[in-house]
Amino acid sequence: MNQHPKVLIIGAGAIGAFYGSKLSQSGAEVTVICRSDYDYVKNHGFTIKSHWQESEYKFKPDQVLKDFQSYKDDADFILITTKVLDPNLTKDLLKPNLRKNSAIVLLQNGIHIEKTFADTFPENEIISALAFICVSRVKLGYIHHQDYGRLVIGNYPNSISIKTELLADLWQKSKVPCETSNNILKQRWKKLVWNAAFNPISVLAGSKNTSEILQNAATENLVRNVMQEVCTLAKADDCELEEEIVEKNIADTKKMKPYKTSMLLDFEAKRDMEIEAILGNAIRFAKQKNISIPHLSSIYGLLCCYKSQ
Amino acid sequence: MNQHPKVLIIGAGAIGAFYGSKLSQSGAEVTVICRSDYDYVKNHGFTIKSHWQESEYKFKPDQVLKDFQSYKDDADFILITTKVLDPNLTKDLLKPNLRKNSAIVLLQNGIHIEKTFADTFPENEIISALAFICVSRVKLGYIHHQDYGRLVIGNYPNSISIKTELLADLWQKSKVPCETSNNILKQRWKKLVWNAAFNPISVLAGSKNTSEILQNAATENLVRNVMQEVCTLAKADDCELEEEIVEKNIADTKKMKPYKTSMLLDFEAKRDMEIEAILGNAIRFAKQKNISIPHLSSIYGLLCCYKSQ
Repeated sequence: MNQHPKVLIIGAGAIGAFYGSKLSQSGAEVTVICRSDYDYVKNHGFTIKSHWQESEYKFKPDQVLKDFQSYKDDADFILITTKVLDPNLTKDLLKPNLRKNSAIVLLQNGIHIEKTFADTFPENEIISALAFICVSRVKLGYIHHQDYGRLVIGNYPNSISIKTELLADLWQKSKVPCETSNNILKQRWKKLVWNAAFNPISVLAGSKNTSEILQNAATENLVRNVMQEVCTLAKADDCELEEEIVEKNIADTKKMKPYKTSMLLDFEAKRDMEIEAILGNAIRFAKQKNISIPHLSSIYGLLCCYKSQ
Repeated sequence: MNQHPKVLIIGAGAIGAFYGSKLSQSGAEVTVICRSDYDYVKNHGFTIKSHWQESEYKFKPDQVLKDFQSYKDDADFILITTKVLDPNLTKDLLKPNLRKNSAIVLLQNGIHIEKTFADTFPENEIISALAFICVSRVKLGYIHHQDYGRLVIGNYPNSISIKTELLADLWQKSKVPCETSNNILKQRWKKLVWNAAFNPISVLAGSKNTSEILQNAATENLVRNVMQEVCTLAKADDCELEEEIVEKNIADTKKMKPYKTSMLLDFEAKRDMEIEAILGNAIRFAKQKNISIPHLSSIYGLLCCYKSQ
């Protein structure tokens, strides 16, 4: 790998474009695969407004492609930033053309999303990554990074490779707070504590933001119970979380500006929601371990009715 | 009480008008209290289309009044057919003018709705009544009785008085299938098995009818779990229900024509829903008895966000 690592981004939405722009600023050669916005991005690139900088900036990827098959280079990193709807689709997309030395970076939500890739591509390094960020695609080619922005990355299942260090360095060079973790699974469970509660509840409670959800004692209690069940599952997955995490999450959310979860934004925009990555996988893990999680099951049972048929 | 018992109906919506018309057909002297529809009903009465009869019929109450204070007679039965939103409101309404020999007939949904009345009016007979009916107010003064129609009535807490027998006779005389029960509490729990599951879930699952709810295994399972928790509560309230009731309810619902619950109709029409009568009272009973009901709590926690502030 040279000084200009090759990065291919699959899913150049808000997350892909934003973190891709940062890799590009650090010298990586960034290619994005764009379907719906292809023509615009090919001609104009992205415009990014970030709360980290005063003025907006341009991000022109080195290549803009319509599909993975058109990529003829040897990517050092394949950054997958699509929503996790059907991991098999992404896997099948990679299968015909994937080269051994491309590390697959899953910068996505959810729990237990890595296994499909690890099983299908046993020779490829799998880097699992979590973004703590509020960022959205406001219009064609325009990305707004509103808040936060931290990354945590680590190899699946539990190590930190040289490539992972290098990727972290690239992000850090462009001032993205990026930590490495040799227990990324635990980091995923930790993030799921918040996500598994607020994402589904924001939709099921009738399109409510975080502050509206916590206005009601009975709903706050549901949040707490769901979070506790996630902690129980994490423990059964050898990832014991700190005891205070539930109350800390609730207290921190109370202090936050009212926030619409990504699942609520998807719901309101009539887009598919990440139900399986955020809840379904946790539910299946509980079943496999024979752990009772009635609150998670309840919200999953309701949310399943929202799936597009 | 003479051959023409005096019935006062508070809440002349679909249920009140329909069952009132039947008492009137059997010779009762029926007064209705109408607020929003007063002018129309005073002049034209109700028109009722019932699946029990070929042609629609008229129901002209003996008196149409704007409020309880205007009623100067000595009612044998005060039939309360309002939605159960705040029982204290109804209680306060009755307080100044209620006479001892008026039996209070609560023809309403929910569980443990009688106690407020029994405590406030210890000298009055409290008759608790359940309607198994699909009936709706289609437009001003026009009621459509689409399906079913059975009543079960009994004295609170657990007897059958002469007055209750007489009321049942009146309904039976006009061909309403009306049973009496000396354990109306158990009947209420039995009805709640269905209501506590399908009413909230129909709203929370994103406006779904019964058949859509049961299309999904995870949602059907939630229905089952909620029903089982209601059975547990019923048992703790000395009302053990038959073991098969849960599966029978699910199987019967699968056979039914797709049905929109009353809570869903209220939600879609932006009317207040009977959250407390159908769920809140059950939740409070569980708390008092220290019984764990995580599925009921989950849907209650979500539904509370739908309350008008």
